Amino acid sequence: MADNNAADRIPNVLAERYASSDMRNIWSPRGKILLEREYWIAVLKAQRALGLEISAEAIELYERVKHQVDLPAIEARERVTRHDVKARIEAFNGLAGVQHIHKGMTSRDLTENVEQLQVYRSLEVIRSKAVAALTKLSKRAEEWKQVVLTARTHNVAAQPTTFGKRIAMFGEELLLAFRHLESLTATYPARGLKGAVGTQLDQLSLFGGDASQVSELEQKIFEHLGMPAHFTNVGQVYPRSLDFEVVSTLNQLAAGPSSFAKTLRLMAGHELASEGFAKGQVGSSAMPHKMNARSCERINGFANILKGFLAMASGLSGDQWNEGDVSCSVVRRVMLPDAFFAMDGLLETFLTVLNQMEVYPAVIEREKAHYLPFLATTTFMMEAVKRGAGRETAHEAIKEHAVSTVNDLRSGVTDQNDLLDRLAADERLGLSRDQLQSILDRAATLVGLAENQVEAFAGAVTQIAAQYPEGATYEPGAIL
Amino acid sequence: MADNNAADRIPNVLAERYASSDMRNIWSPRGKILLEREYWIAVLKAQRALGLEISAEAIELYERVKHQVDLPAIEARERVTRHDVKARIEAFNGLAGVQHIHKGMTSRDLTENVEQLQVYRSLEVIRSKAVAALTKLSKRAEEWKQVVLTARTHNVAAQPTTFGKRIAMFGEELLLAFRHLESLTATYPARGLKGAVGTQLDQLSLFGGDASQVSELEQKIFEHLGMPAHFTNVGQVYPRSLDFEVVSTLNQLAAGPSSFAKTLRLMAGHELASEGFAKGQVGSSAMPHKMNARSCERINGFANILKGFLAMASGLSGDQWNEGDVSCSVVRRVMLPDAFFAMDGLLETFLTVLNQMEVYPAVIEREKAHYLPFLATTTFMMEAVKRGAGRETAHEAIKEHAVSTVNDLRSGVTDQNDLLDRLAADERLGLSRDQLQSILDRAATLVGLAENQVEAFAGAVTQIAAQYPEGATYEPGAIL
Amino acid sequence: MADNNAADRIPNVLAERYASSDMRNIWSPRGKILLEREYWIAVLKAQRALGLEISAEAIELYERVKHQVDLPAIEARERVTRHDVKARIEAFNGLAGVQHIHKGMTSRDLTENVEQLQVYRSLEVIRSKAVAALTKLSKRAEEWKQVVLTARTHNVAAQPTTFGKRIAMFGEELLLAFRHLESLTATYPARGLKGAVGTQLDQLSLFGGDASQVSELEQKIFEHLGMPAHFTNVGQVYPRSLDFEVVSTLNQLAAGPSSFAKTLRLMAGHELASEGFAKGQVGSSAMPHKMNARSCERINGFANILKGFLAMASGLSGDQWNEGDVSCSVVRRVMLPDAFFAMDGLLETFLTVLNQMEVYPAVIEREKAHYLPFLATTTFMMEAVKRGAGRETAHEAIKEHAVSTVNDLRSGVTDQNDLLDRLAADERLGLSRDQLQSILDRAATLVGLAENQVEAFAGAVTQIAAQYPEGATYEPGAIL
Amino acid sequence: MADNNAADRIPNVLAERYASSDMRNIWSPRGKILLEREYWIAVLKAQRALGLEISAEAIELYERVKHQVDLPAIEARERVTRHDVKARIEAFNGLAGVQHIHKGMTSRDLTENVEQLQVYRSLEVIRSKAVAALTKLSKRAEEWKQVVLTARTHNVAAQPTTFGKRIAMFGEELLLAFRHLESLTATYPARGLKGAVGTQLDQLSLFGGDASQVSELEQKIFEHLGMPAHFTNVGQVYPRSLDFEVVSTLNQLAAGPSSFAKTLRLMAGHELASEGFAKGQVGSSAMPHKMNARSCERINGFANILKGFLAMASGLSGDQWNEGDVSCSVVRRVMLPDAFFAMDGLLETFLTVLNQMEVYPAVIEREKAHYLPFLATTTFMMEAVKRGAGRETAHEAIKEHAVSTVNDLRSGVTDQNDLLDRLAADERLGLSRDQLQSILDRAATLVGLAENQVEAFAGAVTQIAAQYPEGATYEPGAIL
Repeated sequence: MADNNAADRIPNVLAERYASSDMRNIWSPRGKILLEREYWIAVLKAQRALGLEISAEAIELYERVKHQVDLPAIEARERVTRHDVKARIEAFNGLAGVQHIHKGMTSRDLTENVEQLQVYRSLEVIRSKAVAALTKLSKRAEEWKQVVLTARTHNVAAQPTTFGKRIAMFGEELLLAFRHLESLTATYPARGLKGAVGTQLDQLSLFGGDASQVSELEQKIFEHLGMPAHFTNVGQVYPRSLDFEVVSTLNQLAAGPSSFAKTLRLMAGHELASEGFAKGQVGSSAMPHKMNARSCERINGFANILKGFLAMASGLSGDQWNEGDVSCSVVRRVMLPDAFFAMDGLLETFLTVLNQMEVYPAVIEREKAHYLPFLATTTFMMEAVKRGAGRETAHEAIKEHAVSTVNDLRSGVTDQNDLLDRLAADERLGLSRDQLQSILDRAATLVGLAENQVEAFAGAVTQIAAQYPEGATYEPGAIL
Repeated sequence: MADNNAADRIPNVLAERYASSDMRNIWSPRGKILLEREYWIAVLKAQRALGLEISAEAIELYERVKHQVDLPAIEARERVTRHDVKARIEAFNGLAGVQHIHKGMTSRDLTENVEQLQVYRSLEVIRSKAVAALTKLSKRAEEWKQVVLTARTHNVAAQPTTFGKRIAMFGEELLLAFRHLESLTATYPARGLKGAVGTQLDQLSLFGGDASQVSELEQKIFEHLGMPAHFTNVGQVYPRSLDFEVVSTLNQLAAGPSSFAKTLRLMAGHELASEGFAKGQVGSSAMPHKMNARSCERINGFANILKGFLAMASGLSGDQWNEGDVSCSVVRRVMLPDAFFAMDGLLETFLTVLNQMEVYPAVIEREKAHYLPFLATTTFMMEAVKRGAGRETAHEAIKEHAVSTVNDLRSGVTDQNDLLDRLAADERLGLSRDQLQSILDRAATLVGLAENQVEAFAGAVTQIAAQYPEGATYEPGAIL
Repeated sequence: MADNNAADRIPNVLAERYASSDMRNIWSPRGKILLEREYWIAVLKAQRALGLEISAEAIELYERVKHQVDLPAIEARERVTRHDVKARIEAFNGLAGVQHIHKGMTSRDLTENVEQLQVYRSLEVIRSKAVAALTKLSKRAEEWKQVVLTARTHNVAAQPTTFGKRIAMFGEELLLAFRHLESLTATYPARGLKGAVGTQLDQLSLFGGDASQVSELEQKIFEHLGMPAHFTNVGQVYPRSLDFEVVSTLNQLAAGPSSFAKTLRLMAGHELASEGFAKGQVGSSAMPHKMNARSCERINGFANILKGFLAMASGLSGDQWNEGDVSCSVVRRVMLPDAFFAMDGLLETFLTVLNQMEVYPAVIEREKAHYLPFLATTTFMMEAVKRGAGRETAHEAIKEHAVSTVNDLRSGVTDQNDLLDRLAADERLGLSRDQLQSILDRAATLVGLAENQVEAFAGAVTQIAAQYPEGATYEPGAIL
Repeated sequence: MADNNAADRIPNVLAERYASSDMRNIWSPRGKILLEREYWIAVLKAQRALGLEISAEAIELYERVKHQVDLPAIEARERVTRHDVKARIEAFNGLAGVQHIHKGMTSRDLTENVEQLQVYRSLEVIRSKAVAALTKLSKRAEEWKQVVLTARTHNVAAQPTTFGKRIAMFGEELLLAFRHLESLTATYPARGLKGAVGTQLDQLSLFGGDASQVSELEQKIFEHLGMPAHFTNVGQVYPRSLDFEVVSTLNQLAAGPSSFAKTLRLMAGHELASEGFAKGQVGSSAMPHKMNARSCERINGFANILKGFLAMASGLSGDQWNEGDVSCSVVRRVMLPDAFFAMDGLLETFLTVLNQMEVYPAVIEREKAHYLPFLATTTFMMEAVKRGAGRETAHEAIKEHAVSTVNDLRSGVTDQNDLLDRLAADERLGLSRDQLQSILDRAATLVGLAENQVEAFAGAVTQIAAQYPEGATYEPGAIL
């Protein structure tokens, strides 16, 4: 009884709590079994086309039942056979009432290709959501491309920039990773029907030694799989460094969103911006200032999880003995789906944050007012010198006042940055309060080529959006 | 409909496929909810004992319903409240018909302690199974302590050892890790009731500012938790470097079994030993030599998985901001249970291998016959010199024959190591075939202090077994 | 010529730029060669004491020249012998003019033990500096234990705490790791003289099969090494999971300082505190506000580096074949010294930050003034209810004003938190401005048991300081 | 004194012991300083071309002294300025006698681009050596494409393959990684002159606000750098996920050689093949069978080291705050050069192994003789059925004999696989010894399409070799 109860089952947290149904359907027991059955049917059709004795009716019998997935029954068979593939073969044969599938195939001729199909389709899902993220980043970057913001290095005010530019900066990082994802997807190679040790001996026997028929059969299977490339020399399994590249690409893809999320958490700490709230969601009513950046924190959490799966992938890569063994098996059962669930959860969360985030211009203005006088000191000096002050004298005077202003702010003597007043009062500089203010006002706009940069980013995204229209308009599901 | 079907749920593979029910029960939704409810009740009792107005009847009402876990109902509440702890409070209150739990507590006063309890109890389960593994290793080491085996360095024959000694070597590695696990378990500190930022403000308010009552309350909770130590200075959360030490200890514990498994895979490749079969299980009937070391491969797989969870734990450790945030939340939801499931699966598999493994003495003998003449060359030389041969002459002669024997074996001129015949035929050495053979027979027994070493290991294990009797007699469940 | 020039040598950055000379001396070529020679001499003395024919004069000859280290000459020998240990044996024999060292020893009987000695002494150095760090943390925690600070969760204001408590929180995390380091150092086992495959065959032959003499010899060597424990069952090498525990402990030890450094970087961004400047060092004169937390950033950098060495240690652990091979060799040459250099650099930097850090009470006050009214809303409500307001009415009123104050602050309608004025003006609450202010003033002091907690931490550190007096008074060297 | 002595300097082990001078020269202090100076001169020339007042003579003065690198003098300046870039500016100005370099530039405008140049040139070196590795793998695969070998799965005999095919399998894995390396090198983007926070404000000021001149200047610098692409939106630094992709690609590239090395270590354990010896090198004369696979073990060591640097790169990626800080600085100082040194050392070692490796056909034959009868059992059965035996009867008979043969081999009843004799003597099968032998002889050749596969690999490599001729003919230096 206990085991039939939801409270006793250990769910896959990443899948059930965070991933979208698109991704879950690829990796669910039903999803995988369906992919397997379609694959077996594709092999049957190809074998039939190449002259093996398989009737159209038999194939039809399999087609008719392929959607009937009775997991408990399959698991019961596995407990008897102690072999998972055998259990699934018997189950499908049992439903169809014939026994034709899996001819001339070893387990890996099935599982390697089907798992690759799961990986490949997952890459496509992720690619689509990455396009959505780029599109939303681009929209936000343009929306706020004129919101001047105090840029920070070492977490300390450095020079003005714009909020749009800051967003485009993380956007361009994502764009670079996206190019890698695109290139990986465009070259991802299928293992194919290679037999027990990779020599294609079993299929060659099936076709009486006719190598061209073996090639033709494999070609048809590659077409069914729909992947852009294929291996020639493999052992029982394909090289696990391919899995490594997949997981590594997901990690690379997580970097831009993760740095963005950290920066938004920092900005929330200064109340410059927040990740916003879902419609209908309310913050703590008593503490309305407490808009916790929980989704951004979660994005950072997903990125960390991906680093763990990277370590697993890295542990498999370069550790293959001879023509292969199964020390990778339990690892890949965990790592492959879960890395995709984590990445999917990350992107769903990221898209939600991009939809809901808010900026607080008044706070941004106050921050600028606080720091700009310091950031403009070199300009003050140049202007003072232009108007006749000695360079060294001006430098000395400005330094004196800047240091004492900082000290007074930190020790509580004052709580407003009154550097301009102090400079205006110092005869050594010969600059009036108004003149200083006007320099300062100009300084606030000194954001270099930030706007052009944002537009360059937006331009690149526009092209990508045109190429992947369904991705560009994708909207995330509701998140917890 | 789809979502109610087993085939659409994504299971936690490590839990459902490999871990034992002991471990699953700690981390299942039911297991966790029960721990939470017992914890809330313990707090209620302590608060009542310290004078807060909570009736014995109210506590009894909670006690009565604490086993009623309706997960779908709780999840439905969470979708409304968007807060998992709140949902579980409401569910428990709803069942009991009163509202007393969670007074003066923040979410983390509940979740941190309950999660620590899950960790602590899991450590106890693992400790027990580690004792079982040590016991079985010790038994095997003693059983085979006189089976002389060709020890290998660089995977090449080096000197004789015994199979028992080889096992004791991996056993002693496990023993060292076990000592760390013991020490961690004996010092594991609970976070306690520390409030929203760790200052215990909320409980202090509840008790009208009486610090001694707050301490007394916390002390009672520590007693309920049953952990050996506790924190004083924490923030909202306890330091994640404690989680890091936990996962790191599991990794250390996996090392001995993992190296053992690799070595058994190597030995299986030479048919010196195998991991055996489960009762009732049959190997491939046509290829009975193919006793694949699948369980050993799986042990290596689990060890690799643990390295990934280590990377996750390492990513959290030292990355805490201020008094805490939840960027660790999603990571810990995955990493903590799954690291324990992987370790549990590793030990279950390891215990099974220790139960079923076999050695093949005839093959071990053949290997020795092949290598011993080479390994004994220095002894041959010493004997020849003793009997009057010149040192340089003897060295030259032996070298000549050893090299040519190796070359002839590798090129196919001979397929038996006939070095002794060659040496006997060489007058420079003055040693007869019989004399050489007798030296060789002696060499085969030159296993140094291997037997004493095995006994030292067995002695240490005997003490541990006496200390943890339930661990010493633990037997693994059936594995896939 | 080029190769003799400093500009062409690739230095070890961690050692040369960041580590202290204490640590460098352990791992420098000279340091290692000296340890080796002292070890060989210890073996000679023990062998002589047990009756082997080694004259006191021969030992004296070695003693006399042990400090003469001519690295280029040793390297020249290695290029001829292609064996590093052989080259160092010949070099030492050449200097002494006799050939007695290394009898009955294999290379690993030397290198394993000497490397362990380097590890062990490095652990002692680190332990000492960890005591220094705890001492300084404790001093700072006490110094600022009454500086009330806005604690943050999710990087957002949550409740008051004290700066001293915040420091004690990171201090207690370090304390926990320190306990692990202490326990590791107190149980660290030496490999000893175990011979080519761990059976002690070679020493047993040297002593004509007398096992008790072999044990006595090894015992003397253990005394020379001075480590607290030793292995019995090993192969050619000791288990690499011991290296893993060492590197893992360093990682754990880095966590407290690393989280402290992140938090200080966050505080610097708010100008609440800074890492200060070295004496004589001046910040940017034009931008005196820009006290970049470069040393804190570097601490985080070191912690990240340690995570990389952890991955290397983890890669070795559980991957040992048979009685051993050298696939770990190049890894350990890099990982062991460099992990200690990184940890040493981290602690030197951390101690410097603890010496120089500054707090800015006026800024801390301004932050409190900004947030406290929100943090005190629940207390306002309770007081209003006490004085006769309806609970729901009071809640409604407070919520209204809190939300509108936040909105006005963020949109620029106001730039001071005037919530108290708004609440005072609302008749529904019946609280005057003065009453509200007095509640607020009290709220600011509501730091729970923070002070007691700090004192508990300080008490624990006092005991440790008494136990390790040289550590407690250690001062860091100058850092870059 | 001590510090001037080689024995007191801590060398970079990876650089000094394993890497080639090609790679060392890129990362040596001299190499880096030269790249910096050439970069400054390129900026000067571009600024002059765009109308800034910089004389041709001044540029000439810098050109003349750029090779004069006095490292101790620069380091002495750094100890005064406490700023490494400033020290190097002053040193260069000092040598030239003028002060024009670094105008309108921040430190990162220099260091980011120069470090990227080091990375980019290192990628080119690695690409070239990867081509060499592919070429040698292809040569070896063709050389041994007809050497039939017992393929192993689970480290146990499975089916025949050829040694050439086994090599091509690892070769194709390397080929896949090489394609990623090629694509990364072909798209690697330079950061460019972006100023303190990425807005190009400083260069814009230098050119009086003329954006087109800033673009033109940056374009010239990109041409000098010679990288194929460039960033538009960055902060103070470029995104560290680019470093991650670099280090990740090196890891992927290490996988094929690493699995090859593990497999050769396994084969050496069976004496099927060895990594050979360097010319002039001799193995242990007394134990000539002990051809330790030290170089292969070292390859595995390098691969493990790279996994550690991957963890460091992964720690930086996605952890960037705002427009940047220097918490990555110390990490990149270690990780970037050392990852390239490790990869370079790996490839140098791998190329050496490919040059020197040997196969032992007689041992390969003996292994086949031992296993082939088992591997051929299904064929025996088919033939018996063809000749009239009942299927079930034949199956039963073969199973009986196979199992008893294995048992007799393992228990020592026999030490030759005499399955054929047993089957010939069993009337149920109706197959003579000669018939069985002839089936077996045929089975030995059943290597499927292995030869075609090898040729496909060789064809792909031929194209690459034509594209990178200098790589194709590269020969490794001498290794330790």
